[in-house]
Order: sequence, then C-alpha cells, then structure tokens
Amino acid sequence: MPRFKLTIEYDGTPYCGWQRQKTDLSAQEVIETAVEGFTGEAATLFAAGRTDAGVHASGQVAHVDLRRDWEPDTVRDALNAHLRDAPVAILSAERVADDFDARFSARKRFYLYRIFNRRAPTALLIGRVWWVSKPLDVDAMHAAAQRLVGTHDFDTFRSAHCQAKNPIRTLEQLDVVRGPGEEIHIHAMAQSFLHNQIRSFAGSLKLVGEGHWSAADLVAALEARDRKRCGPVAPPDGLYLTRVEYGTAPKRTLPPYPG
Amino acid sequence: MPRFKLTIEYDGTPYCGWQRQKTDLSAQEVIETAVEGFTGEAATLFAAGRTDAGVHASGQVAHVDLRRDWEPDTVRDALNAHLRDAPVAILSAERVADDFDARFSARKRFYLYRIFNRRAPTALLIGRVWWVSKPLDVDAMHAAAQRLVGTHDFDTFRSAHCQAKNPIRTLEQLDVVRGPGEEIHIHAMAQSFLHNQIRSFAGSLKLVGEGHWSAADLVAALEARDRKRCGPVAPPDGLYLTRVEYGTAPKRTLPPYPG
Repeated sequence: MPRFKLTIEYDGTPYCGWQRQKTDLSAQEVIETAVEGFTGEAATLFAAGRTDAGVHASGQVAHVDLRRDWEPDTVRDALNAHLRDAPVAILSAERVADDFDARFSARKRFYLYRIFNRRAPTALLIGRVWWVSKPLDVDAMHAAAQRLVGTHDFDTFRSAHCQAKNPIRTLEQLDVVRGPGEEIHIHAMAQSFLHNQIRSFAGSLKLVGEGHWSAADLVAALEARDRKRCGPVAPPDGLYLTRVEYGTAPKRTLPPYPG
Repeated sequence: MPRFKLTIEYDGTPYCGWQRQKTDLSAQEVIETAVEGFTGEAATLFAAGRTDAGVHASGQVAHVDLRRDWEPDTVRDALNAHLRDAPVAILSAERVADDFDARFSARKRFYLYRIFNRRAPTALLIGRVWWVSKPLDVDAMHAAAQRLVGTHDFDTFRSAHCQAKNPIRTLEQLDVVRGPGEEIHIHAMAQSFLHNQIRSFAGSLKLVGEGHWSAADLVAALEARDRKRCGPVAPPDGLYLTRVEYGTAPKRTLPPYPG
C-alpha cells in the first residue's frame, strides 16, 4: 500500500495527547477519523512524537498507508476538509518509500518551549505559553542550559511514568533566547527525548532564571540522577513539537521514543 | 475622584465587543465587575476604541475614576486577580490628570489586521487571524493601500450601521507588510476610524492581493462613496487595537469615535 508522510499542526488543548486512548479524544483519533471520512479506510497513523495532553505541534510528522496512490495534495486538502471543525491542520502530505517510518526513521526532533514573562497575565496567549510573572535572567538560563547539552543520564529530568529502559540521551541543543514581545524561548533538539524531559528542563531553568538555582545547582540535580531533584515540571501549554528531521540511515536502529 | 488610565489586552472572541450591552457580555462589563470586586464601587470605564464582537485588543486604553488614590500597581494587580478567569489582562494602570479622557484625548489609534496566508488552515491561530488560502501579492496590496492614505470621504469603507455624521477621516498610515511565518500584517493608524473601516479595507485589499482588483479599482471604490462598492468585509478575528497615543492638545475637540 502507498505510504504517505503527513506534517501536522495541532492545538493540544482539547486532546489527551497525540496517542489514541480508549476514553479521551486524541489528535491521532481525530485525524484517523478524518482519513476514514475521506477514504473509508480504518487506517492507523504512526507519529514521530507522542505529545502529552495539552502539548502542541507545529510540525508533528506521521505516516499512514492508504489503499490508493492519491495525489499528495489531494490527501492534504481532503483531510483538512474533514478536519474543518478540529484545531488540527495537515500542512503537507508526501508520498514516501515503504521503509519510511515517522517514528523510527527520525534523526532529530525539535521542540520549542514558550515562556511568557511579564507582570501582567496574558489574555491572547492563554494555553499557548507558560506565564511566569517574575523577571527571568535569560542569559543565566542559557548559560546553565549548556551544562545539560551532551550525552547524560537524564533520570532527574524525566517523568516517573517514563517507560524508557535507558535514561541516557544525547541532547544536541538547549538554547534559551528572547522571543518576540515578552516571550522567552527554549529550543531543544535531540534524536529522542525522555517523557516530560523538556518540561522538566523548562521548570528547572525557570528556577535558574529566578535566581533560586545556580548553574552548579542544575548540574548537581543532573548528576544526582534522582527525580526528586528536578524543579517543578513546567505546564504543557508552552510546549510545541516544531520539526522532525529524517536521514537516510537504516531504520529501526534508533532508541525508541519516548519509552 | 482620582482618575486612572488602564492599558488593556483582551481576546475579543467571547465578547459582544468592548461596549456594555444589556444582553451579551462585553469586555467593559467584565472589567467593571472586576473593579467592583476590588473596590466595591460601581465604576464606569471609558475606552479609546469601541471594538466590535470578536475584535481583540493588545493596547486598548480606558479611564476610570475611583474613590481612593490607590497605588497604580495595586490597581493593576488587584484587577488582574479579579480577572483571573477571563481572557482580559490589565497591562498597566497609571494616575492621570482629571481632564485626561481615554476617548476624547486620543490623538492616534493604531490597529493591526493579521491575515494568515497559506494553503492549509491554521490550527494554532484560530480566532486570532483571517485565514486566506490563496497566495496574496503583498506588494500590490501595499501599493494600492497607499492610495487610501490621506483625507477622504470613506463612505464606501464603513458599516451601514456607522453612526458618524461625517464620513471624512484622515488616514495617516495603511501599510501592508509580511509578518512572521505565513502572516501578512496590515498596520492602520489614524486619529479616529469609522465603524468597520479597517475590516472594510482588509476585505478590499484581499481582492487586490488575489488580483481581482487593481489599485485603480480600489480608488474607484473609494471615489464612488458607495457602501455597495466595498469588498466583502473581513472577519473580526484578525483585528487588534494595538495602541493609543495621547497628546497635550485640548480635549473634546476631536471627531468622536466611532459614531
């Protein structure tokens, strides 16, 4: 069956996350229902990142096998028509090789965490950012973040529910920069992340930005390999899966994500 | 009584507009209720711009008289605490002279209209932008927009419900520029606008951007002074009152806004 790669944007607010669940509505189920509305097929989507409840995507990638070799733009437009009432949009559809796997072929996953840093709350970005009212020291956050880059045991910075057997990951990028307006952006990139890893980083980096933690405190938390040493986990509202990069390397040789 | 100037941000989606109405909830009523919750007073707010239903503000200005000479930051923080469950935020509160009038002292009103221009719909900016799927020619829109700048009878570009006696306004700025990502921004500035004037501009400029209208067609529509010659009015979703500028000129000599 022809395989299609879908690049997907969604507002995570109304969903229990990417992954289909028995009781609550997921982004995956909403799109699978749209596929069924379009082609009549009960197809399954496989995604690069299993985003949590309330986490957004501006560049999630999933693959799906369909019976017919549709024109890719027809797939994109037809799915968007079926998704009209949902905060989900198919940005592009492409025909890919049968061995393309949105999850296992992914080489780099890019996430953005948006902090909204001003005294007054936000009216226009509710659910889209993490509002932090006290002024944060962006330079201190960025400098401390560099101490997390590289290959480490990130046990401190993952959920107690994380199913990954191996907590070692190679964090390739963790930049803290000023965004537009009153935003502070954390850009994180790695081949794969642990469950809640970026929200754990964001929560701990906030402590650094407020002056409660030094960079050395952050490193000590990392080295403790102890979940209790993590700062309060940041809310899902500010987190976006923005991009997934694929290479030509053999598939199914990468560490699974997120478990 | 001490007069306070409030700078206000709100999501217009859930409101019938700025102005208090008997049946539907307005941004004005929500803030007046917060004032009452804070001070116990049934105070009235007077705003620079009476935004329509669904229109947003990132820099609305209103004045209110309170019995006590509160510390301005206390007013801001207390109102935000009372507005916790509403998509309304007080960005600042300042003590102003008794003759400051948010509406009649305003010298310049700045509006932004956000168009989201790509084939796929938006999932993350629903209610915040006008989605236009066909590619728009931004340069053509900007060039045509310059023909509207200046002092004109804008009868073509105002609502049939506009209550202004005089349809002549001086449009000081109407720039069409590329915004971030796939956005196109229309920046409009004047001392005062007619009812639906910017949404009328946006709808007509879209026709220019699509190639349906030339700049000459736009000028002909302006010169016809005929509402029927206006393009389809753009939705409220993309419109933001971003800033109001005040001068030291005598008050109550300006043309009323919007009626």
